[in-house]
Amino acid sequence: MTRRGLFVAFEGIDASGKSTQARRVAKDRGALFAFEPGDTPLGVELRRWVLDATAPMDPGTEALLMLADRSHHARRVLEPALASGRNVVCDRYYPSSLAYQGYGRGVNLEHLRAATALAIGACRPDLIVLLDVSIDVANERRARDHEDRFESADADFHERVRAGYLALAQNDTTPWVVVNGDDDFERVNARVDECVAELPWPA
Amino acid sequence: MTRRGLFVAFEGIDASGKSTQARRVAKDRGALFAFEPGDTPLGVELRRWVLDATAPMDPGTEALLMLADRSHHARRVLEPALASGRNVVCDRYYPSSLAYQGYGRGVNLEHLRAATALAIGACRPDLIVLLDVSIDVANERRARDHEDRFESADADFHERVRAGYLALAQNDTTPWVVVNGDDDFERVNARVDECVAELPWPA
Repeated sequence: MTRRGLFVAFEGIDASGKSTQARRVAKDRGALFAFEPGDTPLGVELRRWVLDATAPMDPGTEALLMLADRSHHARRVLEPALASGRNVVCDRYYPSSLAYQGYGRGVNLEHLRAATALAIGACRPDLIVLLDVSIDVANERRARDHEDRFESADADFHERVRAGYLALAQNDTTPWVVVNGDDDFERVNARVDECVAELPWPA
Repeated sequence: MTRRGLFVAFEGIDASGKSTQARRVAKDRGALFAFEPGDTPLGVELRRWVLDATAPMDPGTEALLMLADRSHHARRVLEPALASGRNVVCDRYYPSSLAYQGYGRGVNLEHLRAATALAIGACRPDLIVLLDVSIDVANERRARDHEDRFESADADFHERVRAGYLALAQNDTTPWVVVNGDDDFERVNARVDECVAELPWPA
């Protein structure tokens, strides 16, 4: 019987460094790099609808579209890869819905959790790595990399998302580690590697 | 303050006559005729994905796409119409997800109910009319109108959906009436009109 692959998900607010870390770890471990939303043809369509700024979407509708993308991705991409023995590193997974639509936009968390169960079934990560950064540091990086900063309402929203992630890390049934993303790049790399190394990687 | 419009939804399996009845009642009452899935531009896209036979979809993913369509429709079409005082008759609403994906395809009903609450919020019908037909009668009508019949696996599926509708009619918090759709057309019309007439229509 094929040994099931390991599944690591990276989470965090924009500019937390999670995508950089997810790509780096996937490369180091020879794992499949996956991401949400928009990693399938259906996902690309759904993401386009959610981001369509001409028609701002109700948070409940947005949550359901994100979860439909997640469900499709989990069943068509993640689950088959894991079942075939491939290791997978995913940039965002179910905690993003709970943090962004739940804690950030006020969608009922119990309903979201139930809809999440419907979306992902038994496809749960072995480890979730949260890159936790302060809004100030995220803003400095956005200013440096994209000449962009969170607007004031946006900063409040991201504070709620950040607090949501920290609450999830304490209460979720999946194992989480919280890495201080405000640290310099080398220290974050080292800390992430240390956490990821504790998983039972195949020899 | 504008009086909120009345909201009647019609449910039933394919060839139950529910669409005919929904259109007839909407016309008689001067109400907005609405339908699901696919009554908005987003809904048209989502419906296309669900129906894409080249890539049969996981039932959980299908349920989430249908609920995303429902959520968008409820918040962009149904709720604004009702709030403006317009009466609305809708061909299919939330019971279709519970009957088709839940009872028919085996998706967890409690998760579906929670995801439904997320989708429709407080936008609930004043009355749900179930056109209950036997699979034999539905098949006769399909043969007559479309030279088509349920295939055998399909007939089993529709039996489960029919039984699911009857269970929902007994246990749901929204008021339901069950109309015998096997009856001849004139008697079904009369019975539907009788039920609908009991609602507090504006003078």
